[in-house]
Amino acid sequence: MSGADLSRCSLNTATVKRASLAEAVDAAASAGLGAVGLWRHQVQEHGAEKAARIVSDAGLRVSSLCRGGFLTAADDVGIAAALDDNKRAISETAGVGTRELVFVVGGLPALSEPGQGPRADAGPGDRDLVAARARVADRIAELAPFAAAHDVRIVLEALHPMFAADRAVISTLGQALDLAAPFDAATVGVVVDTYHVWWDPDLRASIARAGAEGRIASYQVCDWSLPLAADPLNSRGHVGDGYIDFPTVSRWVAETGYAGDVETEIFNEDVWAADPRVTARTVGERYARHVLPHL
Amino acid sequence: MSGADLSRCSLNTATVKRASLAEAVDAAASAGLGAVGLWRHQVQEHGAEKAARIVSDAGLRVSSLCRGGFLTAADDVGIAAALDDNKRAISETAGVGTRELVFVVGGLPALSEPGQGPRADAGPGDRDLVAARARVADRIAELAPFAAAHDVRIVLEALHPMFAADRAVISTLGQALDLAAPFDAATVGVVVDTYHVWWDPDLRASIARAGAEGRIASYQVCDWSLPLAADPLNSRGHVGDGYIDFPTVSRWVAETGYAGDVETEIFNEDVWAADPRVTARTVGERYARHVLPHL
Repeated sequence: MSGADLSRCSLNTATVKRASLAEAVDAAASAGLGAVGLWRHQVQEHGAEKAARIVSDAGLRVSSLCRGGFLTAADDVGIAAALDDNKRAISETAGVGTRELVFVVGGLPALSEPGQGPRADAGPGDRDLVAARARVADRIAELAPFAAAHDVRIVLEALHPMFAADRAVISTLGQALDLAAPFDAATVGVVVDTYHVWWDPDLRASIARAGAEGRIASYQVCDWSLPLAADPLNSRGHVGDGYIDFPTVSRWVAETGYAGDVETEIFNEDVWAADPRVTARTVGERYARHVLPHL
Repeated sequence: MSGADLSRCSLNTATVKRASLAEAVDAAASAGLGAVGLWRHQVQEHGAEKAARIVSDAGLRVSSLCRGGFLTAADDVGIAAALDDNKRAISETAGVGTRELVFVVGGLPALSEPGQGPRADAGPGDRDLVAARARVADRIAELAPFAAAHDVRIVLEALHPMFAADRAVISTLGQALDLAAPFDAATVGVVVDTYHVWWDPDLRASIARAGAEGRIASYQVCDWSLPLAADPLNSRGHVGDGYIDFPTVSRWVAETGYAGDVETEIFNEDVWAADPRVTARTVGERYARHVLPHL
């Protein structure tokens, strides 16, 4: 694999989440990758300017920032808090040197904690998925002008339907595109994350549509592994270790003309326990073997 | 809840899976339900005629038989075995007094055991989801004339996308309808199972389409509970205990004119540990509270 062009291969720092920003950047650079995807807590810890310098000093780019979102609150206080926090996230995105702010839009609000089941006092409206989705559309409309003014793109992420109750009421790429449709493609885009969308019978058509509309802000890769982890959020595997047909999906993305980064984002206890440099090297090798030949 | 009309409320016997057929039928009858959904092992144990009599002697109907399917094999031996077994299932369905044979179509064949991850020797073709789905279409075409000759309907079940790798490559109701489209509605239908489809942004449109085409063979209900069980197959809850908006989905089904049974099918260790009569009574109560008023 040595000699493969890894310039479009990005390490999302959640993949090495126990590493500091400096350690994550070092790992990505040592593996010859071209970029890193950052998280807001890193930007907040160092300040946007210094975080950007840590990345650029290593010769890397920032491919995206995670994450805005959590837009499903139904009460005035929750709505105001979501708008405030997302405006801060938009400012941080501009400051750290990427245009792409990934949004996880939130689940049904009938929750105490994600994954813990509905509150005892949940009312019928708390299960109204149609209404929760409509609120997401309303919040995007409110945030889009602010994002446009900061030259930042709101990147809608469809999460796997197993997270519809507690994490994200956007469940398919097609639905993300429908929500993005009222807005300029430079202001509202989508991410194609293999883990979340690989199963979708409409995937090829939705990727083609996303490309034709100029909305693909990121192509994220990691594999669907079984059995699911006790916390299914952490079931993702290295590319090639699971069930996803990366040659086919990567070809569909490439057919749209997408020329941006391919970000690996893995939530997995075993991966987190590994040496960050080893993980970054594995990310590069798997990209070179399963993705790059099909781009 | 006493006095509610439970004549369309059916107990799928998997909900009381530790009960014998006679015990399951007794539980359903004692709770005042109108029907039971059976499984093939029960028909095979008693013979179709006797199994049918156990049900009818209790004043109940058979709402459906589970299950045919597992159609994704790519090798000649596997294909022949699937056709043979499904023809037996079709004959059993006719014999036990229902027209509706529910199909779980199978996952990617790159498996040793469901839920255990890909075989070490899995090749690239084993991850080809598009091809696996095409094989399902081929097998349905081969089985449809046999089903029609026996006046049995092949009922395609979309399973939740978290089962796409290891259980069913049909992941949405719309996809099931596309697969059914080449065939007469009396020969190939679909089931609307809330657990599997509740998250789908296209659900209302797909239910309306299924109804307009005359393809709704069963409306199955159970709830989406969190956290997911260690085996996510067994995460289902009683109607009302989770996140699903039963009034809304039931209204969408009713709007199509669907007048068939509403079958409760729960896979859950706690429910299996309960007294079958108590479980059947809970099924009736939850149906009366969350579903019936919206039908």
